Amino acid sequence: MVTHVIYGGDYNPEQWTPEVWEEDARLMQEAGVNRVSLGIFAWVKMEPAPGQYDFTWLDQVIDLLHAHGVQVNLATPTASPPPWLIRLHPEILPVTADGVTLWHGSRRHYCPHSRAYREYASRLVTALAEHYQNHPAISLWHIDNEYSCHENGCFCDASVEAFRQWLQKRHGTLENLNKAWGTAFWSQTYTDWQEIQAPKRTPAFINPSQKLDWERFCSDSWIDCFEDQKVILRRTTPNIPITTNFMNFHRSLDYWKLAAAENIVSLDCYPDTSLPDWRVESGMGWDMMRSLGGGRPWLLMEQAPTHVNWRQRNTTKRPGIMRLGSYQALAHGSDGIMFFQWRASVAGAEKFHSAMLPHVGTDSRVWREITSLGGELQKLDEVLSSRVQAETAILFDWENWWALEGQAKVSNDIRLLPQVKAIYTELFQRNISVDFAHPESDLSRYRLVIAPHVYLVSERSAKNIDQYVAQGGTLLMTFFSGIVDDNDHVRAGHMPVPFSNLLGLWIEEFVAYAEAQTNVVEAANGQGYPCELWSDIIRLTGAEVLGHYREDYFAGSPAITRHRYGKGTSYYLGTELARDGLAWLLDQACAEAGVRPVLEAPPGVEVTSRSNGTHTWLFVLNHSDVEAWVKLPAPATDLISGSRVESLMQLGARQVAILRLS
Amino acid sequence: MVTHVIYGGDYNPEQWTPEVWEEDARLMQEAGVNRVSLGIFAWVKMEPAPGQYDFTWLDQVIDLLHAHGVQVNLATPTASPPPWLIRLHPEILPVTADGVTLWHGSRRHYCPHSRAYREYASRLVTALAEHYQNHPAISLWHIDNEYSCHENGCFCDASVEAFRQWLQKRHGTLENLNKAWGTAFWSQTYTDWQEIQAPKRTPAFINPSQKLDWERFCSDSWIDCFEDQKVILRRTTPNIPITTNFMNFHRSLDYWKLAAAENIVSLDCYPDTSLPDWRVESGMGWDMMRSLGGGRPWLLMEQAPTHVNWRQRNTTKRPGIMRLGSYQALAHGSDGIMFFQWRASVAGAEKFHSAMLPHVGTDSRVWREITSLGGELQKLDEVLSSRVQAETAILFDWENWWALEGQAKVSNDIRLLPQVKAIYTELFQRNISVDFAHPESDLSRYRLVIAPHVYLVSERSAKNIDQYVAQGGTLLMTFFSGIVDDNDHVRAGHMPVPFSNLLGLWIEEFVAYAEAQTNVVEAANGQGYPCELWSDIIRLTGAEVLGHYREDYFAGSPAITRHRYGKGTSYYLGTELARDGLAWLLDQACAEAGVRPVLEAPPGVEVTSRSNGTHTWLFVLNHSDVEAWVKLPAPATDLISGSRVESLMQLGARQVAILRLS
Amino acid sequence: MVTHVIYGGDYNPEQWTPEVWEEDARLMQEAGVNRVSLGIFAWVKMEPAPGQYDFTWLDQVIDLLHAHGVQVNLATPTASPPPWLIRLHPEILPVTADGVTLWHGSRRHYCPHSRAYREYASRLVTALAEHYQNHPAISLWHIDNEYSCHENGCFCDASVEAFRQWLQKRHGTLENLNKAWGTAFWSQTYTDWQEIQAPKRTPAFINPSQKLDWERFCSDSWIDCFEDQKVILRRTTPNIPITTNFMNFHRSLDYWKLAAAENIVSLDCYPDTSLPDWRVESGMGWDMMRSLGGGRPWLLMEQAPTHVNWRQRNTTKRPGIMRLGSYQALAHGSDGIMFFQWRASVAGAEKFHSAMLPHVGTDSRVWREITSLGGELQKLDEVLSSRVQAETAILFDWENWWALEGQAKVSNDIRLLPQVKAIYTELFQRNISVDFAHPESDLSRYRLVIAPHVYLVSERSAKNIDQYVAQGGTLLMTFFSGIVDDNDHVRAGHMPVPFSNLLGLWIEEFVAYAEAQTNVVEAANGQGYPCELWSDIIRLTGAEVLGHYREDYFAGSPAITRHRYGKGTSYYLGTELARDGLAWLLDQACAEAGVRPVLEAPPGVEVTSRSNGTHTWLFVLNHSDVEAWVKLPAPATDLISGSRVESLMQLGARQVAILRLS
Repeated sequence: MVTHVIYGGDYNPEQWTPEVWEEDARLMQEAGVNRVSLGIFAWVKMEPAPGQYDFTWLDQVIDLLHAHGVQVNLATPTASPPPWLIRLHPEILPVTADGVTLWHGSRRHYCPHSRAYREYASRLVTALAEHYQNHPAISLWHIDNEYSCHENGCFCDASVEAFRQWLQKRHGTLENLNKAWGTAFWSQTYTDWQEIQAPKRTPAFINPSQKLDWERFCSDSWIDCFEDQKVILRRTTPNIPITTNFMNFHRSLDYWKLAAAENIVSLDCYPDTSLPDWRVESGMGWDMMRSLGGGRPWLLMEQAPTHVNWRQRNTTKRPGIMRLGSYQALAHGSDGIMFFQWRASVAGAEKFHSAMLPHVGTDSRVWREITSLGGELQKLDEVLSSRVQAETAILFDWENWWALEGQAKVSNDIRLLPQVKAIYTELFQRNISVDFAHPESDLSRYRLVIAPHVYLVSERSAKNIDQYVAQGGTLLMTFFSGIVDDNDHVRAGHMPVPFSNLLGLWIEEFVAYAEAQTNVVEAANGQGYPCELWSDIIRLTGAEVLGHYREDYFAGSPAITRHRYGKGTSYYLGTELARDGLAWLLDQACAEAGVRPVLEAPPGVEVTSRSNGTHTWLFVLNHSDVEAWVKLPAPATDLISGSRVESLMQLGARQVAILRLS
Repeated sequence: MVTHVIYGGDYNPEQWTPEVWEEDARLMQEAGVNRVSLGIFAWVKMEPAPGQYDFTWLDQVIDLLHAHGVQVNLATPTASPPPWLIRLHPEILPVTADGVTLWHGSRRHYCPHSRAYREYASRLVTALAEHYQNHPAISLWHIDNEYSCHENGCFCDASVEAFRQWLQKRHGTLENLNKAWGTAFWSQTYTDWQEIQAPKRTPAFINPSQKLDWERFCSDSWIDCFEDQKVILRRTTPNIPITTNFMNFHRSLDYWKLAAAENIVSLDCYPDTSLPDWRVESGMGWDMMRSLGGGRPWLLMEQAPTHVNWRQRNTTKRPGIMRLGSYQALAHGSDGIMFFQWRASVAGAEKFHSAMLPHVGTDSRVWREITSLGGELQKLDEVLSSRVQAETAILFDWENWWALEGQAKVSNDIRLLPQVKAIYTELFQRNISVDFAHPESDLSRYRLVIAPHVYLVSERSAKNIDQYVAQGGTLLMTFFSGIVDDNDHVRAGHMPVPFSNLLGLWIEEFVAYAEAQTNVVEAANGQGYPCELWSDIIRLTGAEVLGHYREDYFAGSPAITRHRYGKGTSYYLGTELARDGLAWLLDQACAEAGVRPVLEAPPGVEVTSRSNGTHTWLFVLNHSDVEAWVKLPAPATDLISGSRVESLMQLGARQVAILRLS
Repeated sequence: MVTHVIYGGDYNPEQWTPEVWEEDARLMQEAGVNRVSLGIFAWVKMEPAPGQYDFTWLDQVIDLLHAHGVQVNLATPTASPPPWLIRLHPEILPVTADGVTLWHGSRRHYCPHSRAYREYASRLVTALAEHYQNHPAISLWHIDNEYSCHENGCFCDASVEAFRQWLQKRHGTLENLNKAWGTAFWSQTYTDWQEIQAPKRTPAFINPSQKLDWERFCSDSWIDCFEDQKVILRRTTPNIPITTNFMNFHRSLDYWKLAAAENIVSLDCYPDTSLPDWRVESGMGWDMMRSLGGGRPWLLMEQAPTHVNWRQRNTTKRPGIMRLGSYQALAHGSDGIMFFQWRASVAGAEKFHSAMLPHVGTDSRVWREITSLGGELQKLDEVLSSRVQAETAILFDWENWWALEGQAKVSNDIRLLPQVKAIYTELFQRNISVDFAHPESDLSRYRLVIAPHVYLVSERSAKNIDQYVAQGGTLLMTFFSGIVDDNDHVRAGHMPVPFSNLLGLWIEEFVAYAEAQTNVVEAANGQGYPCELWSDIIRLTGAEVLGHYREDYFAGSPAITRHRYGKGTSYYLGTELARDGLAWLLDQACAEAGVRPVLEAPPGVEVTSRSNGTHTWLFVLNHSDVEAWVKLPAPATDLISGSRVESLMQLGARQVAILRLS
């Protein structure tokens, strides 16, 4: 049970001498650090030779930290197998679709299907867990690190064999597989499981159903690796929660599945704060993490104190920005703030990544901001475990993402994240709280559900969405939805077949725009809104028209529709609206659904709320460069300043208030 | 003997149930379809296990189609070997210059030099041909599919060995090969045939003569594969004509050679109709197909009903565009219109390619346009077998293409197709019919021959072109012509050595322009025409100057010349003229040669003619978006409307008339 | 002892018949050629089968040339092993980091670590040297050709093994290596030498210290190859000097090390003369060559008579440009002018590279310019062996270059050459002579030392630079200097740690700019100078401020500083100044240091001087397109015209004068 807002970072004592450890412990205390992640890349230090485990150094570090009030996220160091293991089992190295081996010398150089890797990892995790099962400093297991971060699937022979076994489990018979993959096309019918290959390099477009199954398989393989370790840890230390660190909207791993297997969701988040919309990107990530955990508080496991090292140009977080971003994480449901990393390395590929304790030492802006934030957070313990409530959900499904962004579509510029982000941006700017939801999940708690490009829909998703509207929900769906089943087979007929009734329309034709082509939607309010990328040629079967095209051979035909269905209402958007048009449409849908902002606030001021049944806290963040005046619903107490705030609050540029409402 | 304009498309019944076959046959009749291409990717369906042939399903389909009046292009399904064959003989898979294997899972995953592939293919073709040798529905053999579409040569060991054998045939002795390849350069002299390699990846520029022979060899290998099958089909079904589908100006296969081996030339043509000059691109392709067949009618084997699926953005053919493009094919000599494909697939990599019968069904614009065109074509049977006559030829030679666009030239931005297209565009817009001709072919029938960038010329080509002018022809040659022999060795001396007499000039120096550099040609008409890319520094030995440079150190020296030679005239263009200048020069050359348009027509109105000795038909296509008035040479009958047209004809935007002249 | 200005080019008689050799010898005489480079790519001609050496053809050529007054740079032809050797020992072929083999068919297709290659090369060099040890025509050994030109390291097994051995020599123990590479990071600790790999392809950033050692190793390997041959040649022909041709600022080979092993530095130089600053690029290369040779005269081994063939567009050297460039080489210390190549090849990958004798023959501008220059050079023998003196040095170190441009920095757009060039350009335009100097070399002779981005500094460099200033030197250092030690480990603390005292400041924070970000430096002269890319946040400990930032959160903080240290002065530049600002700063530093131009001259007029103790010659080059008037320090004699020049000299556009001062 966490009782303080978590504060700290990754700590790699294996890079330092015991003298430095002492200084670190002292400085951590000074900075208000109460948690570090330990051992993430320490395999070779923990097991310097096959089966020879050495935890003495780690005992010393953990005891020292514990004595200074610092708890530990203990990592299983399995993300970087030691050179000696690669030499013993070179087959551990991953192989690309072109047959190129990826070598050791960096990290994550292992094939998840390697038996040798899995066995060595399991033995080490067992030893580690048994060694520390009773240590009071261990608060959380941090399994591996950033699963699937660099890899895009391993194509070695063991992986191909694992893929075949996975396919046998999924499809049962070759006949089913042939049907699921549509192998009558291009003479691809399989007559023996051994004929099946990974989607290695091919002369032309690969079978898209094969590719989709491969992406499912690759994702499942990382989850298998996680499960291997989880079983050991659960057995050995049943009371220590388990996490593995996520990476925002990371494409190659189905976080819904993996999150379901962990106790707490944690995130590594590195926005480029030189971009004006970094706070929107961050917010989207925070909300996804909260949603993955079913609304439970989550943990910001890594962020940068100032710059990273892996972009072309790694810009500095300006004064106050790190603080603002940290509070934003809390505002969206995190119960802690952690960094990569505690002390800046002097060697290795990340030596120019910023750290809480920079190369230059404590007489530095970075250190001053770190210690200041550490102090402030100690005033916020009361918000721990409280939750954010959202009335709006955006549907998001990794399988749909994989299928949608496969090859050889009508337009290959339909991309999921930009569409999700455009919608999220409008809601964010209105201070409307948003969850992300899997299309098969219970949607009944939401007033408004937005379905951007849900191209692939299972039978269950389709029914779920239909039922949601029929029972009174408000739905906004965007084009190229409902097109294929979960094998990526077209649902032929009056598209979108599963939603045609629900929407009161069908689509006679898809019109993909050339790069330079645009159009204008004339909306019900008389405005003309520019659009691009795509038009559905819509045939109405009950829906009313909220906007129609002004140009091209389909001028006058519907672009935006609304349909009453059962007890609910569905909106459909058949094109890519530029910002103003999308804003108008979202306003219609929100009004219809009765969705309201957390608080009306001036531009640039973000407001969220967390509650725990007893109290409600408003998080007010002034992202703008000017001071803002915010009208509160009730008098409140600002936890940071400790002062009482009446109905009107002044908030300086880049300042934050966390208000317990009376 | 074809008696009706061919109409139909690719049909893949293996993707559908027998119930769907019945519906297909009925709908084909409704649409006026009289021909389908069958079996193109059905290898595994025809031969589900090694040597076990199954044609029962195909019998059923063909009989059903035949009963509905649909004839068949029967394909040999050898473009996509089944997975079981790859497992038995993995050496079939092609290998890139980097040594990367290209796997099954898409199509065309075979090395043309694989003995196993060739044997399995031959056995299957034999079985297929014998099975259908007496079936009255089979009208045409369709061998394989789009030879060399994705591959850029196979570099496996068998291919290297085949290359050595091909070289032995071509060069006889190592001494000859060393001379032909200029191996004294960079210490490349071969002392044993086994030392010779394919042009795999190398540290620096590969030997250009080796590369040229490799491109010849790769092209010949596909023709070998074709010949394997042709021998079998010719023996078994001597009366059924043979084709294989071409892909416009496809670089890696010498269509002159392959066309000479088939009975009818057929084309897959997929213009991007969102580009304003799609009709020029198409026209150029149609004229090349007609030329490849020696002027005989050819067949449009595949086009898209509306969009394709393999571009980044696959735009819709606007209303009327598919019809206009179809008539344009007929206007340039096709005897039929076929599509990819009949019924839209629901699975596989081409499921989003448009089809005659779309996913959405028959209540659709696409279906309405398909059935309407099918009806109209039935009125055009009289034009079958008639021919287009051209007085102008553009020289085009694949070997020149390969050599010209090799590496390490003076300017590596001299590209063949853009130059050909610039010239073709001007002629197209004047309604001047154009053939393409091989430089070694009989040119005597042409008033005007244009030789764009004929960099590589054999002795025979050189003499042929010289003789053409000497005997009264008009020639227009552009820069960087006559530079190398057929081993890509420079013809040193007063360049262009083989044409210096003919042109009355020689070139002291090549001037390649930097990207930003331009110049102006001051022409004999007093105009200044912008030019770019290149200047020859010309020394005159008899030619007169039609234009000279205005700038740079060679200001005042000749850019365009004319020379009387024998009974003829040669024009030379020593730079890259922008559009207006090129138009002026072509006008001079056409006037000199007495070349005239088929008909003078308003801008955007294309006119071609076909005749059969008895009748002449004018094809009038209004590509513009406004109605046009066309003055006819004589009263005529419009085959589509059936109405009589006097000397002045009105033609709506995007409308077509096919006029039998009285 | 060279007694005439060397003039000639590469000559490849193996591509021609003996009849052509006769013509060549005659034409060389006509052109004033007195030197050719022979045999560079003639391995297979010298050794047509294993161990069978044939020099008869070469004897004939050399005797013929000698009879015509042409001396020979005799090449060891080891840059292109014959096909028969590759067939015998395919392991000679190099392999990329991806495992792709690079084949024969071009050149430089050998791994420097191949035992077979090294043995065959040594045997051939021995035979060649013994055969020609007494031939009077041999003036210089030309070892191999353009070492490391195309390769970026070989990753074959033999190379990996050689790397391990090199590492053992460098680091002694694994413990040292682990420390040097910082392998505690990402679990990379090595427990056996056999675990170590080359930096092949990895999933993420490779260990930067490993990469740096690899670059050192690859460079050393080429030097080993050179040394193999040098030992043989030194033993056999102790009196013939030795060179190998360099390629300007070529990244992958440490020319300081290699130059130290040769008798004369020689250069292949191919500026793109279509760029306005080609003369600056060339000048920078010339000065580096002179510096590599410790100030001794060097040799321009290759340049193009007009265009090259390996750029996308290979522009012509305009009339007079080749001559101007040639004199510029002499002006910067060369004792000769040579070209690639004598006679244009008609086959092979370089047939479109220009030659002294072009394809078109002797009636050509190129030939006229070649023969004219050959005539002029005969008047310049007196300047042979004279030297250029520079008071300014720019520090340049290959190890720093490799480390600086590795991955994962704060800004990955800090590049060494652009910075060096920006500085060099200003000095060039002021006619201030510049040396390049290794940071560990004796700097005491220079008034001004400029240290651009000396990111990596050894202890010895650091002390050397400190001492230089302490003892009275003037230093100008630019940002991101002094950051790491020679293992690429950060020197943590008050950066730049080794120079903090010297500079009187330390850096609290690095600010990498985003692409669109800029700032302005307000300088001590009241001007605002734009800057970009980077800002150090400087904390002063003694330095005075010469400029500060106008914008951003660090507005007002120092951007440019000056500090008196010991008897000297140090300037520091903490940002990337645009041209005007850099010019101002350099003017300050030059004034401080007392550095003066060779001669004040109008814009576009370059002046250098060479002296030999007895005489001083001014080289005056008018690069501009207008005539210029130059005021001389004293009356002089122009060697080319032979005329006397008083204090004021007129020089036409693109004209040159070489003046012996009275």
